[in-house]
Amino acid sequence: MDEKIWKELLLKNDSKIVFLIMDGLGGLPRESGGKTELETARTPNLNKFAAEGICGVLDPIYPGFTPGSGPAHLALFGYDPVENNIGRGVLSALGVDFELTGRDVAARLNFCTLDAQGRVADRRAGRIATDLNEKLCEKIRNSVQLPPEVEFFIQTVSEHRAVLVLRGEGLGGLINDTDSQKTGVPPLEPHGADEASQKTAKYVAEFLKQVRELLKDEHPANFVLARGFAKYEPMTTMEERYGLRSIAIAQYPMYRGLARLVGMTVPPVPPTYDDMWKQLKENYDSYDFFFVHFKKTDSYGEDGNFEAKVEVIETVDVWAAQLRKLNPDVLVVTGDHSTPAVLKSHSWHPVPALLWSKNARADQVSQFGERSCSQGYLGRMPMKNVLLVAMANALRFQKFGA
Amino acid sequence: MDEKIWKELLLKNDSKIVFLIMDGLGGLPRESGGKTELETARTPNLNKFAAEGICGVLDPIYPGFTPGSGPAHLALFGYDPVENNIGRGVLSALGVDFELTGRDVAARLNFCTLDAQGRVADRRAGRIATDLNEKLCEKIRNSVQLPPEVEFFIQTVSEHRAVLVLRGEGLGGLINDTDSQKTGVPPLEPHGADEASQKTAKYVAEFLKQVRELLKDEHPANFVLARGFAKYEPMTTMEERYGLRSIAIAQYPMYRGLARLVGMTVPPVPPTYDDMWKQLKENYDSYDFFFVHFKKTDSYGEDGNFEAKVEVIETVDVWAAQLRKLNPDVLVVTGDHSTPAVLKSHSWHPVPALLWSKNARADQVSQFGERSCSQGYLGRMPMKNVLLVAMANALRFQKFGA
Repeated sequence: MDEKIWKELLLKNDSKIVFLIMDGLGGLPRESGGKTELETARTPNLNKFAAEGICGVLDPIYPGFTPGSGPAHLALFGYDPVENNIGRGVLSALGVDFELTGRDVAARLNFCTLDAQGRVADRRAGRIATDLNEKLCEKIRNSVQLPPEVEFFIQTVSEHRAVLVLRGEGLGGLINDTDSQKTGVPPLEPHGADEASQKTAKYVAEFLKQVRELLKDEHPANFVLARGFAKYEPMTTMEERYGLRSIAIAQYPMYRGLARLVGMTVPPVPPTYDDMWKQLKENYDSYDFFFVHFKKTDSYGEDGNFEAKVEVIETVDVWAAQLRKLNPDVLVVTGDHSTPAVLKSHSWHPVPALLWSKNARADQVSQFGERSCSQGYLGRMPMKNVLLVAMANALRFQKFGA
Repeated sequence: MDEKIWKELLLKNDSKIVFLIMDGLGGLPRESGGKTELETARTPNLNKFAAEGICGVLDPIYPGFTPGSGPAHLALFGYDPVENNIGRGVLSALGVDFELTGRDVAARLNFCTLDAQGRVADRRAGRIATDLNEKLCEKIRNSVQLPPEVEFFIQTVSEHRAVLVLRGEGLGGLINDTDSQKTGVPPLEPHGADEASQKTAKYVAEFLKQVRELLKDEHPANFVLARGFAKYEPMTTMEERYGLRSIAIAQYPMYRGLARLVGMTVPPVPPTYDDMWKQLKENYDSYDFFFVHFKKTDSYGEDGNFEAKVEVIETVDVWAAQLRKLNPDVLVVTGDHSTPAVLKSHSWHPVPALLWSKNARADQVSQFGERSCSQGYLGRMPMKNVLLVAMANALRFQKFGA
């Protein structure tokens, strides 16, 4: 649905919309005919919301497509995840709470090992410890000097991973990876695909030249490989788009960064689930839209730890019971994508979703699970639609046409 | 989903994807509350695949649209059936194994009977025997002479049906049917809607003039009617599009032609279902995608023969049991469209489908039928999506975005 169409239909009111997102929620059974993680978990509170609301299964991108976290969250926020695909470098910068500006180009860096002939011997430098990474970044920060018209920032992510940001006027992000994904060959030179990117590639080349000289006696990390160059393009905010003053209650940098990308307020990291509840309650009167993000369902899915993922879901179920006290106008509970423990990775399977609202037309689904949700009123729909349906249930749209 | 987007996500692996297509599979009950052809058929083997896999109902074109075989098959192959709509003439040429080039315009011909006043008395010339058709085509081939810059080819299909192909530079296919679909009136003159088609229409008019003179003493077929003029536009192949080396196991010319259109290998006609199995087995190691086509479900649907359609489905069910031996990574069983025996024609009803894969998230559907399939995870989706979901289950896509 084209933004232009709903823009004219927007209404403002005092309604509250809560999105409770369990990252990688969707799962698979361990054996044919068995239950998924969500179906295994004891979720009386979510089941009650499901029974009173409507359920469905959501395709984050398109049937059959496995999303990364970036596009999946943009779909949750109602943005077209294909039109608004974000470069990897930008996502990584968001992931370390880096405040990007419209003058920035970001890339992922890997510390790597070059052999005596300058060929890549290990693309991850043996996955060096994070504190060594921090020391090397500090060294680079203190020694590398670029021309005065361009600034650079380098920041540790974890292990061998770091982020590079170049800031200046007229930079471009259409630059190839210097990581050829192969060992036994030298790193590639950076080249730009248009004028702005060619200029930027020269700064990158200069940066790499100095880093190489600087780290030549380090071991095992004596160089860096860069990939995922991307220019940061500011997006329209949730408030501009939907009139929703929005806030993110999230512990992990990437999701905080994605929320910031669409203009949400992002208060300090809440260390525990109790803190997340407090943050939600304290800010409840000042916002319209609440993005509450639980990460561990995805982490355990990636680890292949079925039981631990089940336990996280059960913990979130208890947490969710408190939402009754806030009495939101609309509650959506879903994931950004599926991360079945049996696959140990994100997957293309549609994501179970429930939408609870006194204005929803409750369907017959009384359990929050993949199979049951597929029987609900929401049907199988693109994930980007769910925010529009939530807005409708919050009575934030007037009718289309007469 | 735009081809450009998934192109970058394609992975290659050794997975095997089998599409078992029963033409015109979808049906209707004979009386209100009764069972469809598929629901009536005893299909223990397909039911088992359904129970272990996911089910849904597919719209070949769009809800409410009745497709011809061409667009329906292109949707099965993952091509947008509207953007890639193929003219009837081209389809007929494909149907007789004619090798079209980018310089060709093709049309369907019917031998017909004109009365003494030159009015169409029988649009099908009493459905003349195929060997008479062949003799008449030979006669035309030997006698009709067009200007040197254009070649023509005429080929028998069966009974009164033939195909005409004009080959030359700058031809166009926007030419009206000369068959008005009525009797008691003269055939229409061919006219082109643009410059290229006007030029081509003149060649067609010259062709028809000579044929009329040549056949004037024949009986009952003393002329031809032309319809479905279309220029042949080569398409990207399944291999270019998806990286799938593809083969068609099909008995009928039209479907073999459609498979050839998208670049599939089409081995010689397998005369029996046993031969189809042999052809599948013999080629199993050399291809990634297997299009296996059963025609008779549609033929009996068109005849209004409910019981015979049921029997064909039961025969295919037994045939399908053998697929277990091949252990494909993904098996899709569906039709290209519905052909309910009670309607004696193609229809708009969505087509039941099952997708079986160890990576699918089995739903609760344990019977392969129209009503049961509508309860499955695949939901109701455009037919063109099913190949993408099959590719995902074959782990042939990397994730979208980071």
